[in-house]
Amino acid sequence: MSNRIQKSALISVFNKDGIEKIANKLASLKIKILSTGGTEKYLNSLGIKTEKVEDLTNYPSIFGGRVKTLHPKIFGGILFRRDCDNDVAERHNLGLPEIDYVIVDLYPFEETVNSSKSHQEIIEKIDIGGISLIRAAAKNYKDVVCISSIEQYEQFLIDLDQNKGNFSLSKRKEYAINSFKLSSNYDNQINNYLQNGKLEKRTKLRYGENPHQEGYFNGNLDSIFEKISGKDLSYNNLLDIDAAYNLMLEFWDDIPTFAILKHNNACGIASRKNIKDAYLDALSGDPVSAFGGVLISNSEINKETANEIKNLFCEVVMAPKFDNYAIKILKEKKNRIILNIKRKKFNDKIVRTCLNGTLIQDKDYITDKVDDLKYVTETRPSKVELTDLIFASKICKHTKSNTIVLVKNLQLLSSGTGQTSRVDALNQAIEKAKKFNFNLDGSVMASDAFFPFPDCVEIANKSGIKSVIQPGGSIKDHLTVEFCNNNDMSMVMTGNRHFKH
Amino acid sequence: MSNRIQKSALISVFNKDGIEKIANKLASLKIKILSTGGTEKYLNSLGIKTEKVEDLTNYPSIFGGRVKTLHPKIFGGILFRRDCDNDVAERHNLGLPEIDYVIVDLYPFEETVNSSKSHQEIIEKIDIGGISLIRAAAKNYKDVVCISSIEQYEQFLIDLDQNKGNFSLSKRKEYAINSFKLSSNYDNQINNYLQNGKLEKRTKLRYGENPHQEGYFNGNLDSIFEKISGKDLSYNNLLDIDAAYNLMLEFWDDIPTFAILKHNNACGIASRKNIKDAYLDALSGDPVSAFGGVLISNSEINKETANEIKNLFCEVVMAPKFDNYAIKILKEKKNRIILNIKRKKFNDKIVRTCLNGTLIQDKDYITDKVDDLKYVTETRPSKVELTDLIFASKICKHTKSNTIVLVKNLQLLSSGTGQTSRVDALNQAIEKAKKFNFNLDGSVMASDAFFPFPDCVEIANKSGIKSVIQPGGSIKDHLTVEFCNNNDMSMVMTGNRHFKH
Repeated sequence: MSNRIQKSALISVFNKDGIEKIANKLASLKIKILSTGGTEKYLNSLGIKTEKVEDLTNYPSIFGGRVKTLHPKIFGGILFRRDCDNDVAERHNLGLPEIDYVIVDLYPFEETVNSSKSHQEIIEKIDIGGISLIRAAAKNYKDVVCISSIEQYEQFLIDLDQNKGNFSLSKRKEYAINSFKLSSNYDNQINNYLQNGKLEKRTKLRYGENPHQEGYFNGNLDSIFEKISGKDLSYNNLLDIDAAYNLMLEFWDDIPTFAILKHNNACGIASRKNIKDAYLDALSGDPVSAFGGVLISNSEINKETANEIKNLFCEVVMAPKFDNYAIKILKEKKNRIILNIKRKKFNDKIVRTCLNGTLIQDKDYITDKVDDLKYVTETRPSKVELTDLIFASKICKHTKSNTIVLVKNLQLLSSGTGQTSRVDALNQAIEKAKKFNFNLDGSVMASDAFFPFPDCVEIANKSGIKSVIQPGGSIKDHLTVEFCNNNDMSMVMTGNRHFKH
Repeated sequence: MSNRIQKSALISVFNKDGIEKIANKLASLKIKILSTGGTEKYLNSLGIKTEKVEDLTNYPSIFGGRVKTLHPKIFGGILFRRDCDNDVAERHNLGLPEIDYVIVDLYPFEETVNSSKSHQEIIEKIDIGGISLIRAAAKNYKDVVCISSIEQYEQFLIDLDQNKGNFSLSKRKEYAINSFKLSSNYDNQINNYLQNGKLEKRTKLRYGENPHQEGYFNGNLDSIFEKISGKDLSYNNLLDIDAAYNLMLEFWDDIPTFAILKHNNACGIASRKNIKDAYLDALSGDPVSAFGGVLISNSEINKETANEIKNLFCEVVMAPKFDNYAIKILKEKKNRIILNIKRKKFNDKIVRTCLNGTLIQDKDYITDKVDDLKYVTETRPSKVELTDLIFASKICKHTKSNTIVLVKNLQLLSSGTGQTSRVDALNQAIEKAKKFNFNLDGSVMASDAFFPFPDCVEIANKSGIKSVIQPGGSIKDHLTVEFCNNNDMSMVMTGNRHFKH
C-alpha cells in the first residue's frame, strides 16, 4: 500500500488542550483545517485560519447543537475511496471536500455522568455526530487518519513531524483500531448507565493476588453491602467475600448459621439455635485456619457473638445486621472490615480468563434438595442424617474440587479441598477431623463428583461415617452401592455434579 | 412521563425477514413509512406505500451506498425534542419529518467476516449510517422507539397491537438499552477483527464446569495449538490445559520436562535427560491422581515415550512436537486429545467474575531466579539444592493456594494444595510423599507465601527436608530463620508471594 500525503483536516473537539499545537503543525504542512462551532472560535482566537463546516454544508447547526456535522458533504469527504475513479468523480461533481485527517474527541462518558446534575443532562451529552465521524474515518483508514483521543496527540505530532503528514497504512490502521475500541467502550458505558442508572465503577486495588500484580475491581459493591468499618478491601478479600457470600446465600432462610472461610474455602460452618453458638461451632471446626479468616453470618450479630469474635484475628465480618454493641466491639480493631450485607443474587454468568481467551458459563444454580434425592441403598438415611446430608452438599458445592465434606449435627467437621485425588480428599478430611478431636461416628459425607471406585465408601465406613450424598453416574456406581448395602451405610444420589475450580 | 402516539417510521434493513408484518401493522395504524434503497423497493413490491429518504433530503445516495442516510433532515427528524418549543419550531421551519420509530438493523459483523472474500469487502460492510440512526434514536428514546434487531420484532408487533403504537417510557428505554448494547458489541467485533485479522470465535462447549451449566469459550485456540486428534475440548479440559500450558512455559527452555495435572494442579512433574524418563518420574509422583489427567511436555514426544503414555488413561497430551510413531500410538484411543502446542505467551491481564462485578489483575509474571535470591541462613543451599529450590518455586507459583511443594532431584515428590492452613498443606504433602514411598531426606520445600510461625520448618525438619524457598516478609521471619540455623537447614527468600486461587 502506498503512503499518502494528506490535504485537509477536520477538527472538532470538546477538550481544547493540546489542539493548538496540532492545528499549527497541520497549518505549517499546508493542510487546510475544517472546523465546527467552539473549536472554530477557539482556533480563530489563536489566529489559526479555519474553514467553517456550516459554510460547506449550507446547513445550520440545529436543536441546540444536537445535529451539527451529520451531513453527506462531510461524511462523503471522509468516506470516498481515493483509489476508486467513480468515487473521485462523484466527489468532484458534488463539490465535496477531501477530508484526510479527522481529529474528533468524545467527552468522556464517565465525566459526563459525574458532572451532570440530571438524567436529561447526561442523555443530552451522548455523542451522535462525533462518534459517527470517528467511525467513518476509522472505516476509511486506508485513506484517512483518525485521531480520536487527546492521548494520541503526542504520537500524532511526532508522526506528522517525521513524515510531513505522510502516514503508513499500518499506522493509520493502528489509529482506526483505537477508534473502534473507543466507540465500543463508549457505548458500553451508555448501556451500563441506562441499565443501572449509574456507571460500573473501576476501583484500583492496592494490588492483585500478589503485591507485584496490579489489580482492579469493576462493579458497584455498595449495592450489595454497606461497609461499616475497616481498611480497604484487597483483591484477596474480594475473592473470599465472593466465596463467603455465595456460600451463605444457600443458608439464608435457615436457622442461625455462621461460616468461616480461608482461601475461598469454608474451614468452619455450623447452624444453631442462636448465632453465638453457630459462631463457636463454626470456629471449632478449624480454629487454626480461622486465623485471618473471613466470617459470615445469615443472622444479626449481637453483642454476645461480637464478644466472642473479638478474640479472633479476622479480616472480614459480614452479616445482614449488627446490633450497635456488636459494631462498637468489632470496630475496636481498626483494620477489621465490617460489612452489612444485603440479600442479593448476582452474576448469572461467570467469566474467567483461559489461555488466549475467556471461559463463560452459567453459575452453578442448583441447590440439592431432599425432595430431589434418589435413595439407592437398602438403608435409608435418618431424618437427622438427611438434614446433615443436604447441609454437607451445600458446603461441597462451594468448596474447591476435588472435595469431600464431613458433617455431623449441622456442623462442618472437616473437608478435603482442592485435591488431585478423591481418596486424598477423603483421607485429608478424616485426618483433619481427628486432629480437632471430632468423633466421626454417625457423621455424613458429601462428594462434589461421583465415586469412580468404591474406595471412598470403604475408607468412610472404617471411620464411622454412616451416610453419603453424591451425584452418582459412574459406571461402577453399583460397586459403591453394594458396599454400602453390605455395611449398613445409606447413600443418596443427587444427579448434580458440583465441580468448582 | 406521558405515553406518546407515534406518527412516522423510518425503516432501513438488510434482512427483510419479518419486515412485511411490521410495515403492514404500522400502515394499519396510519403511521407513515420512510424508507431507503432496497427496503423501499421491497416494501413497494409488496404494495406497501413508503416515502423515499432521498426525496426528503434532496441528496443522492453516494459512493456505492457508502453515504445514504447521513443527512441532517433525517437525524433532525429523529433527534428533535418533542417537548422543547424551540426544537419543534426549528423542525417546522426547516421542513423536517417527525420520525417516531426507527427500524434499522446491522448486518451481523460475524457473518460479514465469514461470508466476505477479502479484507476490503469486510471493511466495505462496516456500517456507518445505520448505526448512527440507531444511536440517535436510542439517545432520544424519550420520544422515539428504536428497533435495532430482528429478534425484537415479535415483541414490537405485540406492543404495537396492544397499545396502538403507544409505548411507555420504560419500554422505549428498554429498546434503547438493547441498541447501545448492540452498537457496543458491533464496534468491539470490528476492533477485534482489525487487531487480529479475525474475530474472536465463540465456541459453545458441551457444558460448563458441570452438566447443568451452559459453557462457552471466546478465543482463537488455533493460534496456540493444533489439535491432532481426540474428542471436543470441554470446559474443564480448557481449565486444565490453561494451567498446564502456563506451568510448562516456566520450563520451556529447560532440559526435557514432563508434567501431569489434575483439577488444575500438578500431581507430577520431572526434568530428566530424556523425555521418557521425565514422563516416568512425573507419573511416579502420584500414579493414582494421574488417572484421567492432562499431560504436557516441553520436548518432542517420541515413540518410546508414547509407548509408556498409552498405558495411562489420560484426557489430554500436549507437546511442542510429536514424532509420527508417537501420534499413531497415542491416537489409538479415539477420545484422547492430542495437542501440538506453540510457544506463546497470552493474556497479560487476568479477568474473573467476583460478586456483582469483575476482578482484573496482571498475570503473575515473576519467575524466581537464583540471582535474585536472598540467603538468610548460616547454611547455604548446595548447588543441587538451589536447582531444586527454583524448580519447586516454579511449581508452587502454579499450584492453588495455600500450597507447599516438596522436590528432590528435579522431581515433584508431592504437594499440599488448596489448603486453608499452611501446616495442613505441609502435612498433606509429607503424608502423600510417604504414601508413594519417597524418601524426604535431602528434599527441598517451597511455600507460596511466607511462614507466619516457625511451625512449618519444624515439621519439615522432622521429615528430613533440608532446604526451603519462600517469599519472606513475616514479622516473625527471624524465628523461622533461627530454627533453620539451629537445625542445619538452609533457607532462601524470594520477596515474591505467589498466591493463586
